[in-house]
Amino acid sequence: MNYKTHRSIRRYQTKNLQDGLLESLLEAGTRASNTGNIQSYSVIVTREQAMKERLAPLHFNQAMVREAPVFLTFCVDYNRLATWSKARETSCGLLNLMGFYNASLDAMLFAQNVAVAAEEEGLGYCFLGTALYNIRSMIEVLKLPRGVMPILGMAIGYPAEEPEMRVRLPLSAVVHYEHYTPMTNEEIELAYQKVENDPFYQKQVADAGRQNWAQLVMEQQYTEDTYRRLSKEIIDNLREQGFEL
Amino acid sequence: MNYKTHRSIRRYQTKNLQDGLLESLLEAGTRASNTGNIQSYSVIVTREQAMKERLAPLHFNQAMVREAPVFLTFCVDYNRLATWSKARETSCGLLNLMGFYNASLDAMLFAQNVAVAAEEEGLGYCFLGTALYNIRSMIEVLKLPRGVMPILGMAIGYPAEEPEMRVRLPLSAVVHYEHYTPMTNEEIELAYQKVENDPFYQKQVADAGRQNWAQLVMEQQYTEDTYRRLSKEIIDNLREQGFEL
Repeated sequence: MNYKTHRSIRRYQTKNLQDGLLESLLEAGTRASNTGNIQSYSVIVTREQAMKERLAPLHFNQAMVREAPVFLTFCVDYNRLATWSKARETSCGLLNLMGFYNASLDAMLFAQNVAVAAEEEGLGYCFLGTALYNIRSMIEVLKLPRGVMPILGMAIGYPAEEPEMRVRLPLSAVVHYEHYTPMTNEEIELAYQKVENDPFYQKQVADAGRQNWAQLVMEQQYTEDTYRRLSKEIIDNLREQGFEL
Repeated sequence: MNYKTHRSIRRYQTKNLQDGLLESLLEAGTRASNTGNIQSYSVIVTREQAMKERLAPLHFNQAMVREAPVFLTFCVDYNRLATWSKARETSCGLLNLMGFYNASLDAMLFAQNVAVAAEEEGLGYCFLGTALYNIRSMIEVLKLPRGVMPILGMAIGYPAEEPEMRVRLPLSAVVHYEHYTPMTNEEIELAYQKVENDPFYQKQVADAGRQNWAQLVMEQQYTEDTYRRLSKEIIDNLREQGFEL
């Protein structure tokens, strides 16, 4: 039941995965549901140190990219489907926003199944959303052709740390019955109390010299300027990769 | 290890989930990794028959929407984050394409953890991508406010069928080492042999009067026209829900 006690692991032992173990995790990934069983995803496995050195700066030099024995980049992939379609005398018309979006959802079900399988095998992992922060360079380093877009990174290896589980919002804050009910200010206060009082976030807020966690999140970690820039980069790179937008 | 032997379940027993079981599955969902722990998702639980009757037509009247004891709609949710930000004297600037996309990835890690948890409890499920086919009506029925978008449906209940596992492409077709290598036509032939010769797909192709599975997929199931229309609907509805595009 490791999926109920997940901790992201950022420090790894140097120990490699035994032969076949990575393939067993990826096989588990492919068993996740996917749209129409067309499997519009691929995963790039990085194990060579030279390639890790090239990827690391694209992930803001987070140490785990260099240190984990295995690094994965999950991708939307219509390249294979286009080649297959052509060989079958038809064409793949899914290189557009819906195609990209839907394949992304499938790729994440795949990724989470890999994650669950990894923890069952005693491995640790950390997902890296930074795959979306330097898309163009990622495409070049991984040689991604038309129809392929990188969307999520993942470090995998044997843990060299035992972090605490992160506190989450109470379930009532994310679950709505029958229809959505917007939260009142009073409900917000109750829901965020535990997270905001957690020492982990209190230290982050203090270290950053912010007044509260919301200000740290919105004014430093995930700013409107950054997200606007990344929105544009997603669109530009989708076009470069052959998607019609 | 149910995640290695997943089958989508489309027929359910009438038996309800015992008290607290659904919450335990959703709790497992929230344990999945998410960007910066900001949990930019929500899930709408449908258990009332009247609501199932309203949702069913939006999912092309697939019987499981009415018949499964529980139906979930996973949503991107920046409404709560916006209210929280305002209460903390800052503002949430994530209502744009990157915000929608990134929250969608997180919501899928959440959804797959719910799926794994459900199977561990002897339940069956089926994801419904049709949540993206009637977004506007879905928003109305579920009363989704500004900042909230429905992205994936999920039927859950005790299985009343025991389907075979679906055949998948060989792992070599979806895994690339160090960099992407486009498949040659010869590799395509080998990779698709097992799927194309599978009786399940051969029957589908024959019933539809098509020549092969690729033509069924691309000319009937997931056509360019439909995906173009849905691309536009995603954009129109994101704007309606307050996202800047």
